[in-house]
Amino acid sequence: MIRHAALFRLNHAAGSDAEAGFLSDLAGLKTIPGVEAFEIAREVSPKNEYGFAVSMTFADQAAYDAYNSHPAHVTFVQGRWIPEVAAFMEHDTVALAV
Amino acid sequence: MIRHAALFRLNHAAGSDAEAGFLSDLAGLKTIPGVEAFEIAREVSPKNEYGFAVSMTFADQAAYDAYNSHPAHVTFVQGRWIPEVAAFMEHDTVALAV
Repeated sequence: MIRHAALFRLNHAAGSDAEAGFLSDLAGLKTIPGVEAFEIAREVSPKNEYGFAVSMTFADQAAYDAYNSHPAHVTFVQGRWIPEVAAFMEHDTVALAV
Repeated sequence: MIRHAALFRLNHAAGSDAEAGFLSDLAGLKTIPGVEAFEIAREVSPKNEYGFAVSMTFADQAAYDAYNSHPAHVTFVQGRWIPEVAAFMEHDTVALAV
């Protein structure tokens, strides 16, 4: 299982309608096939520059690849993510048995 | 619920005994009271500078604070984390209902 996360900061003011609209449309990505455990979270650590995180899991790399190339994801990235996200960092992990 | 994560890169060579020893001792933190859903994961995205992530959840800020000040955590940070971690970023989140 792969956990995919993106930490991000928006161009929008905190609490603005634009912020809420972005998060609502971001949540629409959970309907893409293969997406599991979808979650949007508020960053609460003062020790990094991001305001939010979105995370989800995929059963395997094939499911992750299918998500990446899905038209709904591509459209969201081009139409909303790129113009409205000021900074982001992708963070993908596979759990270790330790 | 608060999810606490730290993305990190070690001073040790990949696959080394020193790396394995660090991860094994890091896993010992899961026995500290209040720690839930403890996980160590390997970073698989080429898009950031970290090699591993450790994450856990706490019921509330009081449980998180108790973990931070617990002697086992303080001893690990001073004796292992600071000398053996080359770079890290803390990333703490609270899930949003969107």
